[in-house]
Amino acid sequence: MKKKIGNQTIIFPSKPCVIGFYTVGGIKEGKGNLQEYLDFILEDDNFGEKTFEKAERKILEETMTKAIEKSKLKPEDIDMLVGGDLLNQIVASSFSAREFNTSFLGLYGACSTMAESIAVGACLIDGQFFKNVLCSTGSHFSSAERQYRFPLELGNQRPPCSQWTVTGAGSTVLSDKGSKIRVVSSTFGKVTDYGIKDVNNMGAAMAPAAMSSFVAHFEATNTKPSDYDLILTGDLGKLGSEIFIDLMENKNYKMGANYSDCGHMFFKNNQKTFQGASGSGCSAMVLNSYVFKQMQKGKFKRVLFGATGALLSTTSSQQGDSIPGICHVVEFEGGHE
Amino acid sequence: MKKKIGNQTIIFPSKPCVIGFYTVGGIKEGKGNLQEYLDFILEDDNFGEKTFEKAERKILEETMTKAIEKSKLKPEDIDMLVGGDLLNQIVASSFSAREFNTSFLGLYGACSTMAESIAVGACLIDGQFFKNVLCSTGSHFSSAERQYRFPLELGNQRPPCSQWTVTGAGSTVLSDKGSKIRVVSSTFGKVTDYGIKDVNNMGAAMAPAAMSSFVAHFEATNTKPSDYDLILTGDLGKLGSEIFIDLMENKNYKMGANYSDCGHMFFKNNQKTFQGASGSGCSAMVLNSYVFKQMQKGKFKRVLFGATGALLSTTSSQQGDSIPGICHVVEFEGGHE
Repeated sequence: MKKKIGNQTIIFPSKPCVIGFYTVGGIKEGKGNLQEYLDFILEDDNFGEKTFEKAERKILEETMTKAIEKSKLKPEDIDMLVGGDLLNQIVASSFSAREFNTSFLGLYGACSTMAESIAVGACLIDGQFFKNVLCSTGSHFSSAERQYRFPLELGNQRPPCSQWTVTGAGSTVLSDKGSKIRVVSSTFGKVTDYGIKDVNNMGAAMAPAAMSSFVAHFEATNTKPSDYDLILTGDLGKLGSEIFIDLMENKNYKMGANYSDCGHMFFKNNQKTFQGASGSGCSAMVLNSYVFKQMQKGKFKRVLFGATGALLSTTSSQQGDSIPGICHVVEFEGGHE
Repeated sequence: MKKKIGNQTIIFPSKPCVIGFYTVGGIKEGKGNLQEYLDFILEDDNFGEKTFEKAERKILEETMTKAIEKSKLKPEDIDMLVGGDLLNQIVASSFSAREFNTSFLGLYGACSTMAESIAVGACLIDGQFFKNVLCSTGSHFSSAERQYRFPLELGNQRPPCSQWTVTGAGSTVLSDKGSKIRVVSSTFGKVTDYGIKDVNNMGAAMAPAAMSSFVAHFEATNTKPSDYDLILTGDLGKLGSEIFIDLMENKNYKMGANYSDCGHMFFKNNQKTFQGASGSGCSAMVLNSYVFKQMQKGKFKRVLFGATGALLSTTSSQQGDSIPGICHVVEFEGGHE
C-alpha cells in the first residue's frame, strides 16, 4: 500500500491506536475551560519541588507514569519514549526519560511537539519497529517566562498580543492495537517564515506554518474542512487563529464552526491571558483531555490536530532574525468506546 | 520479518542506503586528523557571517546543500530533513531547514544527534514512508562556548578534563536504493546517569550510556566487538573512551584495535584540546568524511557507530543535577564502490 501521498503526508495503513492518555494542569489551567477534562490539577505549581524546572519535569513524569497506567501496560512494555519540551536542551523530557528503563528519542518542535511526537510514534508502530510508544510533552509558565522573557520577580507587563505559556503536560500511549481512537494519517510540516519579528506575537508567526500544513493535508488527502468533526490548530491564540482563518480563506478553504484553536479555547476570558494559551503543554493538554475524552464518548469521530511551533531562540531574536514556524498535523479517527 | 530484536534494537530489512554525504570543518578542525577527509575547510570560522550562530547555521546549510548535490538528487527529491544541533531551541537546524521546501523533523540528542537522525531516517525509509531523507547536524566552537560555558572574550582557562567543541557539520542523504553503504540496524539509547556532575568531564558522564547501548546492541544482534571492522563511540574523548573500555570489559566485552572514539581521534596531540573533540559536529564529521570514504574504498565493511550525547543544560547543572547521557548506535555495511 502506498503510504506517502502528496509531498508531506503519510497514511498509516495499520492505524496505530491511542490506548492511554493523561494530563496534569497547573492552578490557573485548572480554572480554565479544560477544568472538567484534566486528569489532575495541581494545588501548587511547584508540585513540591524547589525550582520551576524541576516542577516541570515532575509534572511531565507524572503524566508519563499515569498514561502508562491508564493504558493497562507496564512501564517495561513501553518500547520507546518520544518527546521534547521548551526548556533549553529539552531537559524536562531527558530527565523524565531517565526514570524509565526505555529507549528515548528526543525531539524539538517547540509547541508543535505533541503532534510531532505522535506522528513519529505512529511511524515507529506502523513501520512495525515498535509496539508501544509513549509520546509526551509539557511546559511550565514560570520556567518559560524566565528562560524566554523575564523572571517573574521583575513583574514586567505583558503586551496585548502575548499568550500565556501553560503549566501542565500531556502524555499519549500509542500501540499497534487496543483502542477505537486511531492515528490515520499525518502531515509533517515545513519550516515557514513570513518575516514576523515580534516575539510577543507568536500567533502571527506560526499561522502561516499552520496554513501551509493544513493546505498540504487537505490536498494530499483530498478532503476539506467540513469533512472533519473537529479541526484544531494550536497554539495560535485568538489573533493567530484569526490570521489562520484569513490565510486559509485566501487558499479557498473555509474554516467553519468545527474549527478551534488550542490556545484560544484553553482559558476563560476573565483569566487575563490576552491572546490565550501557549506552550508545548497547551496542545498536549487539549488533545489528551478534551479531545480524546470526547472521542471516547463518540462526540468526535474524525479529528484533525495541527500543533504549531515557533522555532526561535532568544539568541536568534536578539540577532535580528525573524521567527520561523512549523506545524505538524495528525488525523485521528474514533468511535464510541 | 521481525524488525525489533531485544528491547532497543531495530533490524532494517530493506537496508536504507547512504547515497550522499558532505562535511565542512573549521580552521582548527582542518588541521586535525580528518584533514584529508573533510570536503571543505573554512578559511574563516565565521564563514562571512556576523555572528557565530549565523556561521553555524550557514555551515550546516552548506553541508545539506552539498550532500544533496553529491547524492545526484535535486532538493525537491528530498522528502524530509531530520536533524538538530546544540544551540538552544536547535535554531541552527530550524533556520537551515527554512531554506529547503521540505518537511522538517527537529531532534535533540545533543552530540548523539547524527546517530539519532540516521536511525530515525532509516525507520522512515524502511517503513516505506519516505524515499529520501537528509540527516544533518553540526556545531560551532564559539557559539557553544558562550552558550554553555563562557564567552571567548573572557579568555577563561580550560580544565584538563575538557573537550573542544568542533566547528563543522556533516550531512547524510539516506535513500531506499543507490549505494553499497547501507544502514543495517540501529539501537536506540536509554537515558543513563551514573551521577557525574562535572560539566567539564562530559566523557565520564556519557561513557555509561555508550556502554549501555553497545552492550544492548551486541546482545540483540548476537555479535561481539571483533565482528566489526570499525567501532566508533563518540564523542567520549580520551578519558571517556578509556572509561568506556573499562566499563565494557566489566561486561565481558573486550574492545580491541578496531575500536576508536570520534572525539579522541579528531585532533592531533599538539592541538591542545585536552581530551579531544566534542560537539554534535564531531561524530557527524568523522562519519561523513573518514568513515564513509573508507567504506567506499572497501577498507571497512562492517561499522558500528554509536554517537553519545550529554543531556544537560546550564540550568540543570546550576540546579545541582547530574548529567544524564544517551547513545544511539547505528550499524552500517559497505562494499567497494
